[in-house]
Formats: sequence, structure tokens, C-alpha cells
Amino acid sequence: MTPSWRATVLTLYPEMFPGHLGLSLAGDALARGEWALEARNIRDHGLGRHRAVDDTPAGGGAGMVLRCDVLAAAIDAAAPASDPRPRLLMSPRGRPLTQAQVRALSEGPGLIAVCGRFEGVDERVIAGRGLEEVSVGDYVLSGGEPAALVLIDACVRLLPGVMGKAASGVEESFEGPGLEYPHYTRPREWEGRPIPDVLTGGNHAAIARWRAAEAARLTRERRPDLLGRDGP
Amino acid sequence: MTPSWRATVLTLYPEMFPGHLGLSLAGDALARGEWALEARNIRDHGLGRHRAVDDTPAGGGAGMVLRCDVLAAAIDAAAPASDPRPRLLMSPRGRPLTQAQVRALSEGPGLIAVCGRFEGVDERVIAGRGLEEVSVGDYVLSGGEPAALVLIDACVRLLPGVMGKAASGVEESFEGPGLEYPHYTRPREWEGRPIPDVLTGGNHAAIARWRAAEAARLTRERRPDLLGRDGP
Repeated sequence: MTPSWRATVLTLYPEMFPGHLGLSLAGDALARGEWALEARNIRDHGLGRHRAVDDTPAGGGAGMVLRCDVLAAAIDAAAPASDPRPRLLMSPRGRPLTQAQVRALSEGPGLIAVCGRFEGVDERVIAGRGLEEVSVGDYVLSGGEPAALVLIDACVRLLPGVMGKAASGVEESFEGPGLEYPHYTRPREWEGRPIPDVLTGGNHAAIARWRAAEAARLTRERRPDLLGRDGP
Repeated sequence: MTPSWRATVLTLYPEMFPGHLGLSLAGDALARGEWALEARNIRDHGLGRHRAVDDTPAGGGAGMVLRCDVLAAAIDAAAPASDPRPRLLMSPRGRPLTQAQVRALSEGPGLIAVCGRFEGVDERVIAGRGLEEVSVGDYVLSGGEPAALVLIDACVRLLPGVMGKAASGVEESFEGPGLEYPHYTRPREWEGRPIPDVLTGGNHAAIARWRAAEAARLTRERRPDLLGRDGP
């Protein structure tokens, strides 16, 4: 059976995949065929004897730019125009990834992730191949690969059967309107720090109220920017 | 010579490291000893014959919580109180990682990254061991490991000698006040799409003006939230 959720990564470093996605629960599910991951080498479509994939930036400047013709050839070989999967370009210039987008991606047929290296990719391939720029955060990485690994990890953990009982499902950060409440477990007291009484008192309504109040407090203190947002 | 920048990761999946950090330019620099990475297994400090590391949440609920005593023992074994490196807990509840924080971390002695799994970690260890919660983005991962790999990747690429000429240094997203301008390279025309004339005209002042205007336009259109921020 072909897995219904498939990720294809276009990269100059296919050996970075599956990486951590080949281990733990995601890796077990990958081995069971519950999702699929394919890493394709952009360099297979490089030009000339040296399989060149990049060139100097038009207008000057540092670094090298991935050629649009090479990247387009790699994309065309990996996915026909009829492939329904979204084509994402991992880029710090992209739309910041949210849990709502992760959930939508996990409910679809999978994704195609294009990983840039060097200074960036030739702008024209973005419009020419309908790439959607996605950013995993406001920082700069060595390339798109670590970002693609993070994106796929976030999606795969939501696939049916992958996390099993380890997934809590709903009560976690960003699934509701804000951050998650604090957790405690045994021992009841540790280095003079007790578990809050309410959590060991057995009053389930009081526990639910305490958790909601703590989640609201943490969100207000740390991420007031989340309070204006709609939930996913 | 001991590398001056050292990352220690506490994890239940030490085999996820170095992962992609062992490849490409970061991996070459790791092999040359220009930075160091150590992954320590939290389970080495687990309790009893089964080396238990987690327990059910106080107050009920799904998932399992990492015990504070186990995690504290792992932290104490990895880093004496005198270790000057910041102790970071990878957590979606943390302060969102920024390029300014990445740069500050890369200029310090390194970092200790604690990776949670399961529902979360017992809240008490955060204050008990002075952990700073860091989030790589507003989405939920299978654990802290993919986040730690991203954080370390972002830091390592800024270390002297790691990226070499591949690093553009200053002209990139988040190093200035906003997003980066678009890049182009050969061919001059591709699928009916030409490189903008200004970039091939040789007027360096006009190129600089165009790039600044494009960066400002992209930031305004895509990330107006960045415009109020101070640069790093």
C-alpha cells in the first residue's frame, strides 16, 4: 500500500534525510510504511561536467544563488504538474509556520519541500513553479534542510497512528488559543518544591480551572501577541 | 585544543545527534574540532531496573511527564554549577528564538540544550536548575531534539571559520531590520522571465537603492510585525 502522506525533499544534501525522522515514533511509522519520505538531489539536474547548480548574484554581492533552471528541472522531475501536494520553499523570508498550517498540511496528501543553500534561490523559480515560502522562525539556518526536518516532524506527529498514546492530542501549546499549563509528576516534593496542592486534591473541576488560569497567565506574561490571534 | 564553543544536549535519543550537524560545513568544522557537540542520555539517570524517566501527570491527563529528579541528575552530571554556558529548555512555551539571541549565543561559550519528550517536563526543574525556555517557532514538535538541532545549526554557522566564503555575513534576513531582497543569477532570461534591468546595468548605487526598496517592500507586505522591532 502506498502511504497516503508523502514528503519529497529537494536538497543538495540528501544524506541529511531521514535524519531524526528515521528514529523514534516518526521513524517507526516510516518503517511501517505509514508515511513516506524521499530526498532527491538537486545536483542530479546540475549543468555541465561539474553539475553546477549555482552562480554569482546578478548585481554583485557575496554568496552564490541557486539557478532557477536547475531548480525547476529538479522540481519537474520530482513532481508532475498534477501532483496535488503543496510546494514549499524553506526560507526565512516566508510566512511563519503555525500549528494551524502544520495541521492543515498533515491532513493533506503530504508536501514537497525545496531546500535552498548558498545566498538564496533565484527569485524567478518561486513564481515559475508556484512555490510557497515558509519560515520556521526568525533566525537564519545553514540551509533549508534543518527547517524541512522540523516541518516534516511537526506534520508527521499528527498523522493517525504515529504517536499513539504518546500524543496528547488537544491540550497542548498552540492547539488552543495560547501556551500550555505547567506539568508536574512524582515525587510530591523535590528540593523543597511541592506539587501545587490543587493537583493532588482530586477535585477535577478545580484542577481544570487551575490549569486554564495558569495557561492564560503564562500566555499573557510571555506571549501577549498570541492573545489577538484566532485559534487554529 | 579544546574548542571554545561547546554544545551539550540532554536527550532520550542521543542517536539523533549530530544528525545533519555532522554533515556539510557544520560537520566539516565539527570534524576539524572548531566546535564540539556532546549528546548525553537522560535515561542514564533513570530510576530502578527499567531506568524510568517519566511518570503520569499530577492532576490527571494524557501523556507522561519527565521527572524533575531524573532530569536534574542528568543536568548536574553534564554541567557543574560553575559551567558558564546557558541552560536552555527547548519548549513551545519558551521565548521565541531570534537571530539576535542566536548571535549572542554564538559569541558565548556554547550552550546546554535540554530536550523534553512526552507531555512535557516537571515544572519544578525549570526553576530548580535555572533553565531558560526557548521556542524555535509556534508549532509543536515530537520532542526537543529537532528544535535543538535547529538552534545549534543557527549558532554554529556564525562561528568564525565555519561558513568561510559561503557566509554572506551581514546582508541577510533578520540581521538588518527586515527580510532580505530577492536574488537573481544566470540565465538572464528564463521562461520569459528576465532579471530586472537594474541588476544587470552596472550602476552600483542604483542596485543598492533597488535592493533596499525591495527589502523594505517585502518586509512591509509579509512581516509588518518586524518593522517595530529594533535590529539585533
